[in-house]
Amino acid sequence: MDRERLSALLDRHARGEVSRDELLEALAVAPFVELGDARVDTHRALRTGVPEVVLGTGKTADQVARIAQTLAAAGGNVLITRVTPEVAAELRERLPGVEHLPVPRLAILRQAPVAPRGRGPIAVVCAGTSDLPVAEEAAAVAELFGNKVERVFDAGVAGLHRLLASLDVLRRASVVIAVAGMEGALASVVGGLVAAPVIAVPTSIGYGASLGGVAALLAMLNSCASNVTVVNIDNGFGAAYVASLVNRA
Amino acid sequence: MDRERLSALLDRHARGEVSRDELLEALAVAPFVELGDARVDTHRALRTGVPEVVLGTGKTADQVARIAQTLAAAGGNVLITRVTPEVAAELRERLPGVEHLPVPRLAILRQAPVAPRGRGPIAVVCAGTSDLPVAEEAAAVAELFGNKVERVFDAGVAGLHRLLASLDVLRRASVVIAVAGMEGALASVVGGLVAAPVIAVPTSIGYGASLGGVAALLAMLNSCASNVTVVNIDNGFGAAYVASLVNRA
Amino acid sequence: MDRERLSALLDRHARGEVSRDELLEALAVAPFVELGDARVDTHRALRTGVPEVVLGTGKTADQVARIAQTLAAAGGNVLITRVTPEVAAELRERLPGVEHLPVPRLAILRQAPVAPRGRGPIAVVCAGTSDLPVAEEAAAVAELFGNKVERVFDAGVAGLHRLLASLDVLRRASVVIAVAGMEGALASVVGGLVAAPVIAVPTSIGYGASLGGVAALLAMLNSCASNVTVVNIDNGFGAAYVASLVNRA
Amino acid sequence: MDRERLSALLDRHARGEVSRDELLEALAVAPFVELGDARVDTHRALRTGVPEVVLGTGKTADQVARIAQTLAAAGGNVLITRVTPEVAAELRERLPGVEHLPVPRLAILRQAPVAPRGRGPIAVVCAGTSDLPVAEEAAAVAELFGNKVERVFDAGVAGLHRLLASLDVLRRASVVIAVAGMEGALASVVGGLVAAPVIAVPTSIGYGASLGGVAALLAMLNSCASNVTVVNIDNGFGAAYVASLVNRA
Amino acid sequence: MDRERLSALLDRHARGEVSRDELLEALAVAPFVELGDARVDTHRALRTGVPEVVLGTGKTADQVARIAQTLAAAGGNVLITRVTPEVAAELRERLPGVEHLPVPRLAILRQAPVAPRGRGPIAVVCAGTSDLPVAEEAAAVAELFGNKVERVFDAGVAGLHRLLASLDVLRRASVVIAVAGMEGALASVVGGLVAAPVIAVPTSIGYGASLGGVAALLAMLNSCASNVTVVNIDNGFGAAYVASLVNRA
Amino acid sequence: MDRERLSALLDRHARGEVSRDELLEALAVAPFVELGDARVDTHRALRTGVPEVVLGTGKTADQVARIAQTLAAAGGNVLITRVTPEVAAELRERLPGVEHLPVPRLAILRQAPVAPRGRGPIAVVCAGTSDLPVAEEAAAVAELFGNKVERVFDAGVAGLHRLLASLDVLRRASVVIAVAGMEGALASVVGGLVAAPVIAVPTSIGYGASLGGVAALLAMLNSCASNVTVVNIDNGFGAAYVASLVNRA
Amino acid sequence: MDRERLSALLDRHARGEVSRDELLEALAVAPFVELGDARVDTHRALRTGVPEVVLGTGKTADQVARIAQTLAAAGGNVLITRVTPEVAAELRERLPGVEHLPVPRLAILRQAPVAPRGRGPIAVVCAGTSDLPVAEEAAAVAELFGNKVERVFDAGVAGLHRLLASLDVLRRASVVIAVAGMEGALASVVGGLVAAPVIAVPTSIGYGASLGGVAALLAMLNSCASNVTVVNIDNGFGAAYVASLVNRA
Amino acid sequence: MDRERLSALLDRHARGEVSRDELLEALAVAPFVELGDARVDTHRALRTGVPEVVLGTGKTADQVARIAQTLAAAGGNVLITRVTPEVAAELRERLPGVEHLPVPRLAILRQAPVAPRGRGPIAVVCAGTSDLPVAEEAAAVAELFGNKVERVFDAGVAGLHRLLASLDVLRRASVVIAVAGMEGALASVVGGLVAAPVIAVPTSIGYGASLGGVAALLAMLNSCASNVTVVNIDNGFGAAYVASLVNRA
Repeated sequence: MDRERLSALLDRHARGEVSRDELLEALAVAPFVELGDARVDTHRALRTGVPEVVLGTGKTADQVARIAQTLAAAGGNVLITRVTPEVAAELRERLPGVEHLPVPRLAILRQAPVAPRGRGPIAVVCAGTSDLPVAEEAAAVAELFGNKVERVFDAGVAGLHRLLASLDVLRRASVVIAVAGMEGALASVVGGLVAAPVIAVPTSIGYGASLGGVAALLAMLNSCASNVTVVNIDNGFGAAYVASLVNRA
Repeated sequence: MDRERLSALLDRHARGEVSRDELLEALAVAPFVELGDARVDTHRALRTGVPEVVLGTGKTADQVARIAQTLAAAGGNVLITRVTPEVAAELRERLPGVEHLPVPRLAILRQAPVAPRGRGPIAVVCAGTSDLPVAEEAAAVAELFGNKVERVFDAGVAGLHRLLASLDVLRRASVVIAVAGMEGALASVVGGLVAAPVIAVPTSIGYGASLGGVAALLAMLNSCASNVTVVNIDNGFGAAYVASLVNRA
Repeated sequence: MDRERLSALLDRHARGEVSRDELLEALAVAPFVELGDARVDTHRALRTGVPEVVLGTGKTADQVARIAQTLAAAGGNVLITRVTPEVAAELRERLPGVEHLPVPRLAILRQAPVAPRGRGPIAVVCAGTSDLPVAEEAAAVAELFGNKVERVFDAGVAGLHRLLASLDVLRRASVVIAVAGMEGALASVVGGLVAAPVIAVPTSIGYGASLGGVAALLAMLNSCASNVTVVNIDNGFGAAYVASLVNRA
Repeated sequence: MDRERLSALLDRHARGEVSRDELLEALAVAPFVELGDARVDTHRALRTGVPEVVLGTGKTADQVARIAQTLAAAGGNVLITRVTPEVAAELRERLPGVEHLPVPRLAILRQAPVAPRGRGPIAVVCAGTSDLPVAEEAAAVAELFGNKVERVFDAGVAGLHRLLASLDVLRRASVVIAVAGMEGALASVVGGLVAAPVIAVPTSIGYGASLGGVAALLAMLNSCASNVTVVNIDNGFGAAYVASLVNRA
Repeated sequence: MDRERLSALLDRHARGEVSRDELLEALAVAPFVELGDARVDTHRALRTGVPEVVLGTGKTADQVARIAQTLAAAGGNVLITRVTPEVAAELRERLPGVEHLPVPRLAILRQAPVAPRGRGPIAVVCAGTSDLPVAEEAAAVAELFGNKVERVFDAGVAGLHRLLASLDVLRRASVVIAVAGMEGALASVVGGLVAAPVIAVPTSIGYGASLGGVAALLAMLNSCASNVTVVNIDNGFGAAYVASLVNRA
Repeated sequence: MDRERLSALLDRHARGEVSRDELLEALAVAPFVELGDARVDTHRALRTGVPEVVLGTGKTADQVARIAQTLAAAGGNVLITRVTPEVAAELRERLPGVEHLPVPRLAILRQAPVAPRGRGPIAVVCAGTSDLPVAEEAAAVAELFGNKVERVFDAGVAGLHRLLASLDVLRRASVVIAVAGMEGALASVVGGLVAAPVIAVPTSIGYGASLGGVAALLAMLNSCASNVTVVNIDNGFGAAYVASLVNRA
Repeated sequence: MDRERLSALLDRHARGEVSRDELLEALAVAPFVELGDARVDTHRALRTGVPEVVLGTGKTADQVARIAQTLAAAGGNVLITRVTPEVAAELRERLPGVEHLPVPRLAILRQAPVAPRGRGPIAVVCAGTSDLPVAEEAAAVAELFGNKVERVFDAGVAGLHRLLASLDVLRRASVVIAVAGMEGALASVVGGLVAAPVIAVPTSIGYGASLGGVAALLAMLNSCASNVTVVNIDNGFGAAYVASLVNRA
Repeated sequence: MDRERLSALLDRHARGEVSRDELLEALAVAPFVELGDARVDTHRALRTGVPEVVLGTGKTADQVARIAQTLAAAGGNVLITRVTPEVAAELRERLPGVEHLPVPRLAILRQAPVAPRGRGPIAVVCAGTSDLPVAEEAAAVAELFGNKVERVFDAGVAGLHRLLASLDVLRRASVVIAVAGMEGALASVVGGLVAAPVIAVPTSIGYGASLGGVAALLAMLNSCASNVTVVNIDNGFGAAYVASLVNRA
């Protein structure tokens, strides 16, 4: 409910086309559907330009399925993240046509064509094979949002030649998503090689002093490359979401 | 030295216009000026599209001045961050025409006009008066990089009406920089109100359990708004740098 | 054993109605029942005005059951928290009539009517569907203590309209319990919207930099709203307990 | 701007008493005074029932003084916390009649009588002499808000008899504020002795493993007494604020 | 090999009763039995006055059994700590007569009478029923070392009367072991009540901000009672070991 | 006020020698002197067998002086720890005859002879010259409490021969206090060399990853020698206090 | 692709023996095999003198097997670390002749003789039986790299005689690898006893305040012995790798 | 006192050339000079092959001077680290001929020629100008120990061309010391570029989430390059010490 719509509404009220009660109702009513334990935001696409996504973490299979069904009823594409095998089974039963990608732990219901968008490709680069689930989550989500995605996987900084071999891919991207665990140095090195914004995703890959991804997170936050911003550990989805916003024409 | 220039160089070498020694030299020579204790990157603007900036932290007044002089000799605008009063005095003596902004702790030498750029304004919103030095650093840097900046200061979430009063400013921005210390909730609330990317800057403002800004940093990294990315604590410069990249036409 | 009762006791001793040994005994005897591995406090209701509660964490099913039986024998209502399925099974067998609520992980034996009490309703607001077990623990406990409870669930700050749609519920509450994981911003936003005390409950919902709820905990402790106090991570029971004390007429 | 006032405003608009532009203005205008670097909330007392307070932390002496002057112009009492000697000097010059309390680091401008309020006294108990500045901040603020305050100072748990000697004071309080550094055990012990809500304030007093008050903070959050809630380290003001809300008739 | 024995050895060497090679050998040989992956210290009792104990943590069932058998061959009593059910089964098979105590996770092979020792009883006090495994480990170990032990269980500080009811037990002990999780306040309170040394054992009981026992550990290290020292989290064995040393006549 | 004295008091009350009001008074009155901001415990020596000590940390020079004067009036020896030069100056002025030891930061007023006590000497061993202030605090305090003290300073584990050269001193001690910063390994090595209890004092000496003494603290808590207990970082006083208790005949 | 090879390549290009396209290709091509989700570095041995190793952590059994097969095809020896039973089963099926060492969790395919190398033996010393998996990983890897290895196991500092009994082994080593959990003191003690470099490996063995190996890690980083460097917790492989480099003739 | 010398001593004792008392004395006497508060190790060069160094941290100017004088009397070169201006002044007065290097905070007394040693040069590479004090400490110490040192300063990974321009210097080094603050990525990148061992030195340079160097430390410990080991934050001396040992012929 922005200022312009409010102004229009008040005009119609002034002309008697909208009653005071209707006006109050319109001002108060929220663009969500009440499910009891969840309030599903069916207007989010309208407000933010990207379809609502169901974050699977911490929800029961039944909750995920009900929310997904509510969103599916609106006719758009539906994306569910952090899909466990249990949730996937539940979704396949209750959401016909849903597609399950086990590596990035995503479920997608495609009901509408995805229009290509974006000023250029989004490059997703990751440091090691172990970072693949997070990197692939970022790549698949960015594709679903209409972006062209180029993958550069297993290109950690200790084998710089593997990274430099894909330098042209990185340089022609309009945004780069850099995914790395352990020491997280990939973000700084990539940041220094490209002029585009780099969204860094620390992963929980590592052991001992990696502290579940905190080492990589701190490294990325302290990047000496000024074009780096950071999202939460393992948050491939968030990186793709922001990259998609940045890539908008 | 990118692939195209390498290709051209090799062509010229093949035609005998460039000797083998000259070629080797060209391949090895780095686009920086050696100052002994610093290697000043005079070609960075070329590579990344933004002028080199001198990060003042951890450098002596003499080091900052020498690096700034080297960059100034190249004729462009020069920006120095984290300028202490001592450094400012040194700069005023050795860099005629330099301008010192004490609140955001910046020094600027303007030698070239700043062309307006960017798809829209960058909004800089901060939670409290105490966050002002960081917020103003972000705002002043973004302006120096050619962006139109709109400031919304002292608009913390505990007085939501102060934030909502500036909702139109936030909504018309192409990027929002959200600066907050203490609990850092501003990033999530702003993230939910706008469709643009939000760059969150935690500040070290707070006491006790704020742990020098770590509380705000963690909050921002865990934002439930998907359009939020984060930079280091008090890193107003970094936020402006990325916002400027994102705002490019 | 407060000063008044001590005074009375001493009077009776002085009048010879109570022997020295009886007096010593009365002074030393503690109002608890010794179970060997537990000392069950059967007089707590007397001392604090709220029935004793069995905290299920860290106790074996047998220990929980024995303590609950001892308390049940006193005739009042008995509440057991953090009830695992194993404990629930044990309780159903040994405590006839016990009721098990799986979502908030509570078991309740109702043996006495609960008198309505409190100056007004207690509002329990939570940020996401995943916070529901903790929020529902707070709500159910507050109801068992005689309070009217109003629930506002899945109202996180990134969708501010969902929260504002329930603003009237929040404003008419005499105490608000705000339950949130991730960045925990809900406490500050709600704190700024109401005049009543807000009891913030961080939850362990989140991943990566949420550090098992520590991020939300720190955010809430640093709240810029002055009417916020905090309890331990996931401590819905504690929040309800204090809210109930505050709500007393 | 609550729902009732909105409804009234819309009625007046419908009757033509308020123009559309006036209505829009009323809806948008925020109850604050714009000072450039601060937005002073002059209506806060109206909204929350307690006067606005200037938190001195992180503000320059000039900023504190300007905000205080703005608030003073509204005619009520003004309270400034965390007042350094520099700020105190500035305030004495620019805010005639201001009173400076150096131990609790407060400045107070009394312009209106403080009406006694509250269901009973608020007890402020602290563990050691070193905790006095925080405890006295809590006590003085609670008094300024109209409460009767009873102080029990230097009553740490290692000398239990010093605490028990004041048991009657603690028991007749309607709220207890427990202030302690080091191991913070005072909160749990007091919590077990009284039926009233206990607001625990960890202090930064201690050394080594006290980690600047984090040890006491963690202890208080883990209190085995269910009537304890916690505020930030050294936050005597916040404790008094909430205690005052709880104590309202 | 202490100085006296060295002196005697050198005398015998001087008299020709011990050859140079024998002397060298005696100086080098260590009083342990090499098992390949373990070096079992069969002379420890001699050196330190307390029998060798097998710490079960991090060893395979086979390793524990082999070490225990080697120690058993020396004829003394053998104590194994942190005995998992798997290790217990292995021990029962290979170490006839071994006794398994499941609550404190101990296994004991009694082959020699335990002589009573100690200046007085050791009191073991714990805060809650959940702390029982650690408290019972301390108590059982202290008994095996020949001490008289008095148990005061479930006597947390939030129900001070339960603790004070056992005050005489605490006061007549020559050492007190205080076992507590959560906020660990028991150590300070007990420390203030007795004149004897108090050995504090934090336990990992708690949740959320207890951080696996770190909250209790920090509290105990910061105890305002000067007679408190601390051992590692859940280290009931270590507390009993030191208490036994302190209690020696 | 222990059970025996209570019993005697009640007898006298029964015989009419003590009135009810006198009895109540005796039960309530605490053995401390109220100074307003401090409650000075003049009976502590009676209760715990060791003179009251003024911990200087966090108190103003005036507070320290007033408390010391109150204790001095009782005629015994007075010990003040953590004495800054400012406090020392204040004490010299107001407490004639006070002695100031700058290295261990102690002030001592000797008014009574110190009777020798203890089963044997207390050895104080420290790792490096930098640990000397803490080690000397422990040594001087132990001496003031009547113990014979033997110092082994600058005997870190990286030069094991320096430690072993004093092995006989360590072995004949009835308690050892091991003081070390950095990696804190001294406690484990000494613990393995002696049969007596070892009280480990981590110091804040070190830099970087020593984290202000936390590294040494953690090492000492994890000691593989079972006869080691730990006190807070830099707490030389506490170590001496406990060592003195342990050393009692 | 080092400078010399580049120079030679350019010469051949200048002589027309290598076309411009071939030259470009040679400059760009990376010495790895693309497997889709992994880029296997078949030239690493050439670059660094040690065979490529497959780090098993975080990879699926299928990924490990495919990478191992690709490396095996090159004819050299292949080493896989952190081999779980599942991975071991997969490898046995797909990599005939592979050898599985369960204690150090290694798999080795021997296809080429290992030439003895190194200036002297590498000593691997560990503190306790529980540290054996990490110590044995270091020892076995060092042997596979051609070094002579001497093992000193279960020689913790609390039983110094067990360590000193192997002093000659330690002193004749050209590098020492010191493996310890808990307080990690072994590194400092060994560091002080030998002149050779000591590579310290903290292990995650311990409980409570060992914080998963962080205590030992911090201790080792703060070692007062200057010849100690540190690798990640449980990183036996890394220690052996560096020890092997240091031991090169 | 190693085994061989012990054997010889025992022979002489057997032949009557050394009395039993002399033998005992020789076995006990430590090769250090007792200064009261320090035990100066004058035989360290003998034992470890490198001259004793005075670590300046935590010592008073007087202590440093006395220790340095004792060492100087032995005639070798003396190195003092972490020299503050105060200590430098004291040394200049009491140690004629001492040389003070302010940037690396070293003082050196050259009394003997430094023989060139080492298999090759040691390269010291640092990330930024701010890391210079630590890098220069490493370089100057390595030179004093007889090594040839090559410096590559201000070569952070965000400007990879600056690092690659010095690739030949790095590749011909027999050991590389990599010094970096902030994200510490330099260690991993250098580790991947060279075959030699890399000793990583995290520095405390950075702000906010660098946590005083902990971010760089964690990154280096998690390096994906296997040839990297780590020393304490800012420990340039330690890195040079180990590098020197590794570089020995």
